[in-house]
Amino acid sequence: MSITVVGSVAYDSIESPAGRRERCLGGAATYFALAASFFTEVRVIAVVGEDFGPEQEAVFAARNIDTRGIERAPGKSFFWEGSYLENLNEAKTRNTELNVFAAFEPKIPGAYRDSEFLFLANIDPVLQRRVRESMPNVKLVAGDTMNYWIKDYRPALLEVLKGLDVLLINDTEVRMLAGNNNLVQAARAVMALGPRFLVVKHGEYGATLFLKSAPGGRGAEHRAPALPLEEVIDPTGAGDSFAGGFFGYLASQLELTPSAWRRAMFYGSVMGSFACERFGTERLQQLSRPEIDARFQVFRDLTHLD
Amino acid sequence: MSITVVGSVAYDSIESPAGRRERCLGGAATYFALAASFFTEVRVIAVVGEDFGPEQEAVFAARNIDTRGIERAPGKSFFWEGSYLENLNEAKTRNTELNVFAAFEPKIPGAYRDSEFLFLANIDPVLQRRVRESMPNVKLVAGDTMNYWIKDYRPALLEVLKGLDVLLINDTEVRMLAGNNNLVQAARAVMALGPRFLVVKHGEYGATLFLKSAPGGRGAEHRAPALPLEEVIDPTGAGDSFAGGFFGYLASQLELTPSAWRRAMFYGSVMGSFACERFGTERLQQLSRPEIDARFQVFRDLTHLD
Repeated sequence: MSITVVGSVAYDSIESPAGRRERCLGGAATYFALAASFFTEVRVIAVVGEDFGPEQEAVFAARNIDTRGIERAPGKSFFWEGSYLENLNEAKTRNTELNVFAAFEPKIPGAYRDSEFLFLANIDPVLQRRVRESMPNVKLVAGDTMNYWIKDYRPALLEVLKGLDVLLINDTEVRMLAGNNNLVQAARAVMALGPRFLVVKHGEYGATLFLKSAPGGRGAEHRAPALPLEEVIDPTGAGDSFAGGFFGYLASQLELTPSAWRRAMFYGSVMGSFACERFGTERLQQLSRPEIDARFQVFRDLTHLD
Repeated sequence: MSITVVGSVAYDSIESPAGRRERCLGGAATYFALAASFFTEVRVIAVVGEDFGPEQEAVFAARNIDTRGIERAPGKSFFWEGSYLENLNEAKTRNTELNVFAAFEPKIPGAYRDSEFLFLANIDPVLQRRVRESMPNVKLVAGDTMNYWIKDYRPALLEVLKGLDVLLINDTEVRMLAGNNNLVQAARAVMALGPRFLVVKHGEYGATLFLKSAPGGRGAEHRAPALPLEEVIDPTGAGDSFAGGFFGYLASQLELTPSAWRRAMFYGSVMGSFACERFGTERLQQLSRPEIDARFQVFRDLTHLD
């Protein structure tokens, strides 16, 4: 089944211990779409500027990603500059230029209307909500957010949460959103705000899936590991790639069984691990499905008991 | 097969968000021995003061732990006071009194000499080495250490590492010991110093087992999750309890197959999770093997893929 994703398509300048790259193709919707495209049909809603040309368009085309919802606006694309020199686990933002994103009004192409899955990548919750309300008939809605919206745009974010089936969020963010330092208690508090499923990403330690109605009253349903990587080139987009692998795999399944949710967590971790291996989306662009399945086996072996 | 453990038997005064306890029975060897005693025969080498009485002795006796190697010395037992009020994941030490531990000269009872497994809990590496050298015929030697020894007693610690089969160490410590922030690279560097196996404990995120000769050149062999706990009463001794469950399970196995190592990691996590549920060793004292096996299943379910 097809996924519509709304979010940023952008340029990133990135500095890490492995080097520096200027104006890589990036943005949450880009990473998400590339990762999800290995599992299902993906359609993107975003806005780009006049600097988005055939070369960038070709990246999406090569993965059969529908870009009819990527609007071209006068001006420059969203731009972000960040550094991992101090901490490989957390970017230090050096510069953010919203550019065409400042006046973004998401428009949903008619051809996207039959998407059964909707992903609201990390953007202004007011826009997330608008897209959610324009697509009332989707089967499953997932979303992401970040500390910036949690801190200063809480009322708008709370409205978004009411319309989500799945929230993907990191460790620090779930504790911040709930105002509770205990992971299990924080997860329960956040699910009480709307989402039936909560995926908490622990960076290099993997991710945990929580269910509102976990059997036996246990808080945690499933934990997927992350792959200890010998070299992290650039962690930009790892969370969005996790979301793409996770949600893309779910959308590819006929039935959302407990087993499908567990595999989705592993595919999320798999796609996040690939994203870190090169700068920007380089690794996702060169990836093949057999490589993905081979790494899925590595992840499985990592936690498997006979 | 039986384990001899050398380490501290102590009193701890502990403050956590759940409350405060004065002078609980504690010490690395105590937690280790209690946890391991559910799997195999355990013998303790330690020193205590005149404040160690029949009540404390009974805790060991109830678990059939051999205490003939616990020497009674004039003076008071080792005492530690710590607080988790600021950070549940890391104790803030308020007071340490070495007392009888200051002049500790480990003596190995003749009855311990046939132990096949030796665990060197976190004490002065000079003492760890002395005990190691006094038991040259053991089948498997594991040890623990901490930032204090890594920082200021490095040469003595390096000597200990040469004689270890397995080192258990936490995330921060392995990076500190290797002088490398990448987990996989740090693990490899530490194994080059001696241990064939390295267990890196990630606190609430579980633990990773590394092998010096990992197949296919992959750095990580196995990752065991930790159980997301709804309430952490007191994390004191969680790492020593992990070590006890891990090493105790290994010692109970006829053959150290790859599967046995993986299960040992899970049993380590299981025992660590119980330790956190009450102050001091309270939970370990009240535990039963069926409870342990039931939680093992919960851990298995947490990461299992069909």
